[in-house]
Parts: sequence; structure tokens; C-alpha cells
Amino acid sequence: MDYYSSEINRLIEELTALPGIGAKSAQRLAFHIISMPEENVDRLADSMKSARKNVRYCRECFTLTDDELCPICRSKSRNHRVIMVVETTRDLAAYEKTGKYEGVYHVLHGAISPMLGVGPADIRLKELMKRLEKDVDEVIIATNNSLEGETTAMYISRLIKPSGIKVTRIASGVPVGGDLEYIDEVTLLRALEGRVEL
Amino acid sequence: MDYYSSEINRLIEELTALPGIGAKSAQRLAFHIISMPEENVDRLADSMKSARKNVRYCRECFTLTDDELCPICRSKSRNHRVIMVVETTRDLAAYEKTGKYEGVYHVLHGAISPMLGVGPADIRLKELMKRLEKDVDEVIIATNNSLEGETTAMYISRLIKPSGIKVTRIASGVPVGGDLEYIDEVTLLRALEGRVEL
Repeated sequence: MDYYSSEINRLIEELTALPGIGAKSAQRLAFHIISMPEENVDRLADSMKSARKNVRYCRECFTLTDDELCPICRSKSRNHRVIMVVETTRDLAAYEKTGKYEGVYHVLHGAISPMLGVGPADIRLKELMKRLEKDVDEVIIATNNSLEGETTAMYISRLIKPSGIKVTRIASGVPVGGDLEYIDEVTLLRALEGRVEL
Repeated sequence: MDYYSSEINRLIEELTALPGIGAKSAQRLAFHIISMPEENVDRLADSMKSARKNVRYCRECFTLTDDELCPICRSKSRNHRVIMVVETTRDLAAYEKTGKYEGVYHVLHGAISPMLGVGPADIRLKELMKRLEKDVDEVIIATNNSLEGETTAMYISRLIKPSGIKVTRIASGVPVGGDLEYIDEVTLLRALEGRVEL
């Protein structure tokens, strides 16, 4: 690849290491970057460095944040007695976008996966149990609807139940707007099992 | 979006401004970046800044390079009397990857497009004509096989022909491995017109 400048090659190489960026997109991105106004490149580069340096885990819910406590854990308008357990900060963001959830969160940063060698000690479970020592009315388990997510949900519910705290799981079924014809069988059966009276 | 840290939001915003990166990929990239080792983030960020700062146009062929002259224009093993005219440095790279072209290049940085208001003065044409004052045997026009590329090729060939220098155009036809059944009609007709005796 010495037909490009070595600087461009180095940049392309660095970009290719990012997830979801192949050789072609790295090339396109690199050429875009060198044609951007210099101050924009500096701003982009600095926001990477700064985010990496300053972002940390919320002391309470372990989401990613700039401060000791995240805005949700700090908020007085949220119900701190209801905790939704999610796998990642992106899942938290997905529920926040609905704008309807009033409780707080707990981010596990992963899910139990015997296959990948991820055990209960590898996710933020101990920290969740510690939070339950304070007054909590309900723990809503919103891990993914995958093998790992389900395993984690089962594990957590068994762990919490002896304490008498209410443990719930978000519903599984046909997505809104979903055409039955195109929904997989497992989902269809889940939707049937979880049917509610009208 | 204040459920993320402001640092992450700023990074996501910067990333979304890049071509081909939507909201979802920007989010995924941002989370990846803050989970990377700090030295890797610094290296990525610095290679962006450095590429933007140090990359410039080759004095001879106008490709992007770190020095006054690019490695190809500097090379003694290339035939400097054959110039291939391409639209972008990426097109140059495509031909270099074949490893079979021995001549040098001229990068126009665009193509004539009356629709987009790009005229002959907006691409590196004057610079090409200046190079032809030296001894040149052939100019191979390898602009894209698009309306703009063809227009540019026609324009350049008319400009050069009076000087007596040989002007050629790369062949247009069915790509190698191309199944006729799936090739568009225009290409099929081009291939027919350009047929060669066996």
C-alpha cells in the first residue's frame, strides 16, 4: 500500500481496527478526514481522547457517565425504589428514549454465558445485590431475549426472590406492527403463552 | 440524549458527521472507543490529526502524499512518458493494486459535471496540460465509466489531440467473471461495439 502516503496508510490501518469498519469504509473515511477543515478533525480527535479519559461508571447503577453519579441516579423525579436491570448502557438508552420509564437502572455490563465463559462474578451482580439492601419495591429484569439474557434473568430472579422483593421480567411476544406471517415460531409460542385477558 | 454522559454524546455527534456513519454505528463506535486501551485511542486520534496536517498534493501528479513528490513520481523504475489520468487517489490505488501498470498518474480530483456545476477549471486539468509540455508518449484516460467520467474523457481528448500526443481510453465492457444475464444493456452494447478480433 505504499502508493498512498504513509500518513494515510497509518490512518486507514487505525480505522480498520474499529468494529464494523472494513477496508473500503476505512479508506473512504480516511480520505474524508484529510479533506475536512483542520479544526473539525481536531474536535473529532479530541472528543475521542476526552471521552476515553473522562467517562467512568456511575457509582450507583454502573452506567457510563462523566460524574460520580449519572443524571438518572442523581434525579429527584425518578423512582429510586424501582430498578430496571439491563445488559448495557445502550439498552438503558433504548428505554430512556421511550420517555415513559420513571424508575432507575442497573447496568450489568454483560450477561451470563457459560459458552463464552462469562459467569455471575463477571457482571455487575454483586453491586446489584448491594443496592437491594436499601428500600427497593421492584426489580424489573430487562436483559435481552436471548439465551444469555434469559439465563441471566433466571439467575437474578432466583438470587433476589428469597429477599421478598418483587422481581419481574419484561414481556416477550410479537413486536408492535409485526406481521405474524414473518415472526419466528419461538416468538409466536412465547406470545401465545404470555397471552393476557381482554 | 442526556441519559448518556455529555462526553459520550459529544463523541457520538462528532462521529455521526462522518460519511456512511449513522446514529446506530456512531453509538456503537463511541462505546467501543471508550472501552479501548487509552493508548490506542490516542494513537487513532493522533493519526487523524497528523494525516490532516501533513498530507498534501504531489507537485507533479496531484495525488495525496506526505512529501513534495509522491513515491510513484519519484520512482526511477516507472515510465514517466505514459500518464494515466484518474478522477481520485482511490482510483489510482485501484490501478496500483493490479501491480501491472508501469506508467505514472495524474489525479484530476473530480470530473466535469455541468449538473453539479463542476467545470474544466475546477479539476486539475491545467496542471495536466502543463505536464504535457515535457516529453510524453501517451495519455491514458481512466476516468469513471459514468456520464461525468465520459464527458471529462471527451473533453480531455479534444484538448490534447492537437498536440499530437497519443490519447487512449480504458476499455468498457463485460467485467471478468461477469454473467451476461446480469449485465445491463448499455454495458452489453459497449462490449459489442468494442469487440476485438480473435
